[in-house]
Amino acid sequence: MSDTSNIAAAPTILLIRPQMAENIGAAARAMRNFGLEELRLVAPRQGWPHPKAAAMATSAVEILDRAALFDDSRAAVADIQHLYATTARPRDMDKRVVTPRQAMQEIRDVMARGERAALMFGPERTGLENDDVVMAQAIISIPTAPDHASLNVAQALVVVAYEWFLAAGDAPPPAARACESGHAPASQFEIQGLFDHLEAELDHCDFFKSAAKKPNMWQNLRNLFLKASLSEQDVRTLRGVIRALRDGPRG
Amino acid sequence: MSDTSNIAAAPTILLIRPQMAENIGAAARAMRNFGLEELRLVAPRQGWPHPKAAAMATSAVEILDRAALFDDSRAAVADIQHLYATTARPRDMDKRVVTPRQAMQEIRDVMARGERAALMFGPERTGLENDDVVMAQAIISIPTAPDHASLNVAQALVVVAYEWFLAAGDAPPPAARACESGHAPASQFEIQGLFDHLEAELDHCDFFKSAAKKPNMWQNLRNLFLKASLSEQDVRTLRGVIRALRDGPRG
Repeated sequence: MSDTSNIAAAPTILLIRPQMAENIGAAARAMRNFGLEELRLVAPRQGWPHPKAAAMATSAVEILDRAALFDDSRAAVADIQHLYATTARPRDMDKRVVTPRQAMQEIRDVMARGERAALMFGPERTGLENDDVVMAQAIISIPTAPDHASLNVAQALVVVAYEWFLAAGDAPPPAARACESGHAPASQFEIQGLFDHLEAELDHCDFFKSAAKKPNMWQNLRNLFLKASLSEQDVRTLRGVIRALRDGPRG
Repeated sequence: MSDTSNIAAAPTILLIRPQMAENIGAAARAMRNFGLEELRLVAPRQGWPHPKAAAMATSAVEILDRAALFDDSRAAVADIQHLYATTARPRDMDKRVVTPRQAMQEIRDVMARGERAALMFGPERTGLENDDVVMAQAIISIPTAPDHASLNVAQALVVVAYEWFLAAGDAPPPAARACESGHAPASQFEIQGLFDHLEAELDHCDFFKSAAKKPNMWQNLRNLFLKASLSEQDVRTLRGVIRALRDGPRG
């Protein structure tokens, strides 16, 4: 077994008797996307290491290089304090069943206390055997359409790893990236300047048709632009559009 | 295009120029797991239908059989009122960025009002092009480790579809805010009609000045209007404004 003592606190992923090497690579890739680092493999059917796993892992190949290999699942979970089994099949077992979201919140909390947690995933076609599931403290059941509950192992891992990433709280809030254009919001002064400009031009070309209709039409039109939360640059652009449309083709 | 009128209310999935037929099959499988039914394909690289897609889809092959095929993305989104682009790459675009969870809650609410929503996913290696992203009202950004943001298209779909399933299971808030004006949101067909009209007039009056500058200027201008979540009435009003400005004072 590799030395994994210096890996950052995140749950360990255990793939039990995975059938396809590609799926191990896809699993590593999803782990890397969502901040998981430690992979353990129990008796992969196509042998280990395998070139198809590396090809599928792309930039996550380091996770494969560090993966620890075990002959049986019992040895692979020996140092784990909180073991979760991911399975879609109902089990006749008196075991707590949690959603991925609940499980990842629990794991975040136990890992904050310095305890070790791991998530088990079974072989592609058959899923985990009862002998594996029985070792777990709880079953993770991914919510799915009731008549289509079978997820590919790599897809199940995507869901669970994604919930880990959210629970771990590393997600940069999207608002931080929202204003990528970098333009400042327009001031009321700029917006009023735009509205005065547009109103004058619309009056000039008799857009409002009647004085009675104008107040309501003009209010709707201003609201339309205000919904857009215009930036300074937007205001400049719109004023350019108004001028261009009004002036028509250049001499 | 297939008749999709009797499909239960869930967002449409749009795969834009998918490279690998296997990924279309994997996407269909994830759709079926999480209660999504309607798939549209724009110019799949390996042709359509394709046996590798069916092999990967397993029990979700019905979704492939019903999938509608389009030559270009614009036609594929014509009847969509709420269009989201799923992309990991930061864009220099002034467009709202939301998490999958936020997006699916929004979509649940608009679909409860009988409006149509769709989620766009781009080709495997390159992701969506700006010409596709620009059509969307908002960008869905999946929270990931910052240095490993690239998800396989089928894996990205798993995350978004999973969040759809969770959101659909929660009842929409009782007072689902109707459009404040009472007007229906504009469809992509109406919005594209507005944009075609505006572009023709701006070309006519040489607004863009140089062919080199036009793509960026025109993209920014469309994003400005898309920020406003235009209603059908807004589109009619804006087209009236364009005509009035262009024609000038009446005889």
